[in-house]
Amino acid sequence: MAIRIFITGGTFDKEYNEITGQLYFNDTHMHDLLGMGRCRVPVEIRTLMMIDSLEMTDQDRDLIAHQCSQCEEDQIVITHGSDTMANTAKLLASKIKNKTIVLTGAMIPIKFGSSDGLFNLGSALAFAQTLPPGVYVAMNGRYFNWDNVRKNKQTGAFEEVK
Amino acid sequence: MAIRIFITGGTFDKEYNEITGQLYFNDTHMHDLLGMGRCRVPVEIRTLMMIDSLEMTDQDRDLIAHQCSQCEEDQIVITHGSDTMANTAKLLASKIKNKTIVLTGAMIPIKFGSSDGLFNLGSALAFAQTLPPGVYVAMNGRYFNWDNVRKNKQTGAFEEVK
Amino acid sequence: MAIRIFITGGTFDKEYNEITGQLYFNDTHMHDLLGMGRCRVPVEIRTLMMIDSLEMTDQDRDLIAHQCSQCEEDQIVITHGSDTMANTAKLLASKIKNKTIVLTGAMIPIKFGSSDGLFNLGSALAFAQTLPPGVYVAMNGRYFNWDNVRKNKQTGAFEEVK
Amino acid sequence: MAIRIFITGGTFDKEYNEITGQLYFNDTHMHDLLGMGRCRVPVEIRTLMMIDSLEMTDQDRDLIAHQCSQCEEDQIVITHGSDTMANTAKLLASKIKNKTIVLTGAMIPIKFGSSDGLFNLGSALAFAQTLPPGVYVAMNGRYFNWDNVRKNKQTGAFEEVK
Repeated sequence: MAIRIFITGGTFDKEYNEITGQLYFNDTHMHDLLGMGRCRVPVEIRTLMMIDSLEMTDQDRDLIAHQCSQCEEDQIVITHGSDTMANTAKLLASKIKNKTIVLTGAMIPIKFGSSDGLFNLGSALAFAQTLPPGVYVAMNGRYFNWDNVRKNKQTGAFEEVK
Repeated sequence: MAIRIFITGGTFDKEYNEITGQLYFNDTHMHDLLGMGRCRVPVEIRTLMMIDSLEMTDQDRDLIAHQCSQCEEDQIVITHGSDTMANTAKLLASKIKNKTIVLTGAMIPIKFGSSDGLFNLGSALAFAQTLPPGVYVAMNGRYFNWDNVRKNKQTGAFEEVK
Repeated sequence: MAIRIFITGGTFDKEYNEITGQLYFNDTHMHDLLGMGRCRVPVEIRTLMMIDSLEMTDQDRDLIAHQCSQCEEDQIVITHGSDTMANTAKLLASKIKNKTIVLTGAMIPIKFGSSDGLFNLGSALAFAQTLPPGVYVAMNGRYFNWDNVRKNKQTGAFEEVK
Repeated sequence: MAIRIFITGGTFDKEYNEITGQLYFNDTHMHDLLGMGRCRVPVEIRTLMMIDSLEMTDQDRDLIAHQCSQCEEDQIVITHGSDTMANTAKLLASKIKNKTIVLTGAMIPIKFGSSDGLFNLGSALAFAQTLPPGVYVAMNGRYFNWDNVRKNKQTGAFEEVK
C-alpha cells in the first residue's frame, strides 16, 4: 500500500518573492523532490494547508489528526514547520493509534541552494516504512518518539528531552 | 553507537574535469552531504576505494567484506556504484551476519545540479537504524533484500527480481 | 588596470538565517561568483557597507561617491540593492566625471537556487570595460544611463523613464 | 533591434545521461538561462547544431558563417565549445564585416552545479551591445579579438596570443 504524504507548509515549502523581498508560500515542492530522489515508493500526496507552524491553531491540528485518521494508508509522512512540530506530534499521538506517522521538515527552504529538505524526506519515507505504529519526528538523520523530542532553539537541531 | 559509513566511489562521488571534459574521482562528498542534511547521527567515515563499480574486482569486494566484518559498528552504510551494487550485496550477505548493512548510491553525481544522492543518503541512514541485521540495497526511496534486487538497465531504477 | 568592485549589500548578498527564519547579511559572495565565472579580469574588491538599499542614507551615498572618486581605478562596478539603485546612480553622476561606473545587483539572493546575480555580474563587468565614462545601471542584460532608469515596482524589471 | 543568438552546442549544453553515464546533448538551456538572468534584451534564438566543438567540420563553420551573414540582426552571440572557438572566430572574421559577433561557451555544463555559463552569457550579451563591429571571444569575464586569442589547454583559460 502507498505511503500517504500530507503537506502543511513550514520552511520546507517557503519561497522568496523577488518583488517584495518576503518569504511566502506558493505550491508545494514535494513532487520536485520525489522526482529528484527518483522515488519509486507509491505515494498519495495531499496538501492540507500552507502555513508557518508558528501560526498553526488547534483547529489546524485537529484537521491534520482527522485526515490521518480517515485516510486508508497506515504509513504517513507529514511535512511541517519545525517550530511546533513536536506539539503536533503530541496531539496526533493522543488521537491516532495503529499507524506509523512521521513528521519532518526543513531548516532551509527547498528552493534555496543547500536545503536539508531532500535529506529529511529520504529519511522520513524510510522511517515510515520501517518503524512500528506510533508518532515520530524525523530530523537531522534521526527519529524521535513524539514524547521525547524538542527543537533546540539555539542550535536549530532536534534533541531528546529526557 | 555510531553508524559506520564506507565510501567506495560510484556515480555518487564523480566530478567533472573541466580541462579534459571527463568524469573522474576526487575526494568524497560525504561530509558536504551530511552537513547539508544537518545530520546529527554519530558516524565514522572511511574511504575504502574510489572506483566505478563496473571496475570493482573480487579482491575489492573481499576488502569491503573484511572492513564490514572488522569494524566495531553494527550498522553500516556503503556508498557504491549502482551497476554492481547487487553483486556486492550478495557477497557481503554470504560473509557477514548480525550486522545491518545498507548499500546506496546515486544516479547523478552529487556535484551536478539535481542529484538523488542526498535523498538516498537520508533513506540509507534511516534504514540502517531501523532494519534488522541483514544486507540491503536502498535506492529510489525503497529498500531491497540482497537476494531480491537488480538494477533495471532500461529505466535505471532498482526492482525486485521475484 | 584592474576594475574596482565596491560592495554595498542588497538582495545580492542576503542569506537565510535558519535559526530565526530571517534574511540577513553575512560576508559578500563576490569571491564565490568570480570563481564560478572563472573570471580572469583583474579586480580590486572592497566592501563599503552591507545594507538593504531602502536603508541607505545620504551619508552612505556620500561615502560611496568618495570611494569612487578616490580610488585609482577608472572602471568601477558597484553591487547595490535594486530599490534605490537609480538614486545612488544619480548622486554619483553629479559628483564623478571621467570614470565608468556600473551599478548592478540581484532580484534573488545569490545563495538561493536560481539567482540572476551571476548573470548580472558578468554583464556589469563587461559594460565597465566597454562603455565610455559615465554612470550606468546594468540589470536584465541591459545598461541604462543614470538619468533614464527606474525600477518598475510591479514587474521588478528596470526600464527607461523617457 | 534584437540580438541574434545562435546555438552550436559545446560543454555549455551538455547533460548527463544517468542510464549510460555519458555526457550528451539534448535541448539547449539558453531559455532557462535567459529566464534566470531576468533578461529583457530582445533576442532571437536559433539552434544551428548541437555538437562538441572538436567534431566541428569546415561545413559546419560555413553554415554558421552563412547564418551570421544572412540574419538581419547586427549583434550576434554564438554559444560554442571552447576547444575550437578561436578557429570559428577566425573563419567568421574572414567572411563577415559590419556585424558584432561574440562567441562564448562554458567550462562546466550549465546543468551541473557551478557552471560559468550564466556569467559568460551575461558578459557576451553586454559585449555584443557595446563593442564595434568585429568578431570576438568572450570568456573569463574578458573579450578577445578573433586574431589574438587562444585557449590555454593547461589552465582552461583564454589568453592573448601576442
